[in-house]
Amino acid sequence: MSNIPSKILEQAVEEISNLPGIGKRTSLRLALHLLKWEKGEVERLAKSLTKLRNDITYCSICHNISNTSVCEICNNTKRDKDLICVVEDIRDVMAIENTTQYKGVYHILGGVISPMEGVGPDDLNISSLIARTKDGTTSEIIFALSTTIEGDTTSYYIYKQLKQNVKKVSVIARGVAIGDNLEYADEITLARSIQNRLPFEIE
Amino acid sequence: MSNIPSKILEQAVEEISNLPGIGKRTSLRLALHLLKWEKGEVERLAKSLTKLRNDITYCSICHNISNTSVCEICNNTKRDKDLICVVEDIRDVMAIENTTQYKGVYHILGGVISPMEGVGPDDLNISSLIARTKDGTTSEIIFALSTTIEGDTTSYYIYKQLKQNVKKVSVIARGVAIGDNLEYADEITLARSIQNRLPFEIE
Repeated sequence: MSNIPSKILEQAVEEISNLPGIGKRTSLRLALHLLKWEKGEVERLAKSLTKLRNDITYCSICHNISNTSVCEICNNTKRDKDLICVVEDIRDVMAIENTTQYKGVYHILGGVISPMEGVGPDDLNISSLIARTKDGTTSEIIFALSTTIEGDTTSYYIYKQLKQNVKKVSVIARGVAIGDNLEYADEITLARSIQNRLPFEIE
Repeated sequence: MSNIPSKILEQAVEEISNLPGIGKRTSLRLALHLLKWEKGEVERLAKSLTKLRNDITYCSICHNISNTSVCEICNNTKRDKDLICVVEDIRDVMAIENTTQYKGVYHILGGVISPMEGVGPDDLNISSLIARTKDGTTSEIIFALSTTIEGDTTSYYIYKQLKQNVKKVSVIARGVAIGDNLEYADEITLARSIQNRLPFEIE
């Protein structure tokens, strides 16, 4: 990005483009847009970013973002505390909660093991998950991580450490998405979905 | 966006999604990403946004963003001050400067007249442009606004007010982009580019 006629603008463009998926061109567009906002509006945006980073708290059990020290899900007596679904981040919790089908609790790792991105087991909430299973009451662990090499590696790494504590360990089904045409499914997914075929049942 | 498990997060997502082109889903992705930044980094981003809005200054002649009261272009003795190119915003200045072909100066309107978006002539830097031409020294005004109805309307509105002050008023050429295949040009552009055909010259 050449010719930016002001140091202040250049710096703002630089900072905004540190956000993921936002290039220099988009960043400039956003910065110029902010110049048309009222000062108070920009102030409010800036403050909410700082507040977000400084004041947010996490559930002490599952590491979900929460206003209270134990989140609403972990605190809900109707949820099955012995069934733990392991996910990467809170968007996954939101997605699963939206299905309204799952009645267990969660454990949020905060990512997956990725040597390429410098993320090791100690950077994730793994030891607290192992600790949750130590008392032997956990009936099932469900791995719901990304269907990537990193996701699979992470599941396997955790599995080795908690298999002796838990009666059942499962992984979410992978296959052709419902409503999808077979011809658009990639080969690996399609192969996996044939391999893991289920008995045909008329409901 | 349902199920956001924290008021602070919800508020940040709300604020970020006020930016143009950023929906709730992208906003949530950005907010969760910010949670992984160091506190100091988020602070720096927030501060640069506030600083951008509060401290930026504009050239008193052409309204370009500038660190000084008269911008580098208006201050450059090698530029032709009698040739004024009228543009919408500073990105247009940057684009034209990148061609390194233009030796005149600019006038930045800050947008185009758009009743639909509630932008009237008084919301733009039009009166200062008319004032610049009042002494009769301007040799040429070049309109380089968007090739839309709003852009054309704005050019015409300004033209009526300054035509008696200026020797020549022109508009940038519209036609088939260089390197483009004729079949991909839209009909209006193609028609315009035939209508405005130029004498064929061997350079």
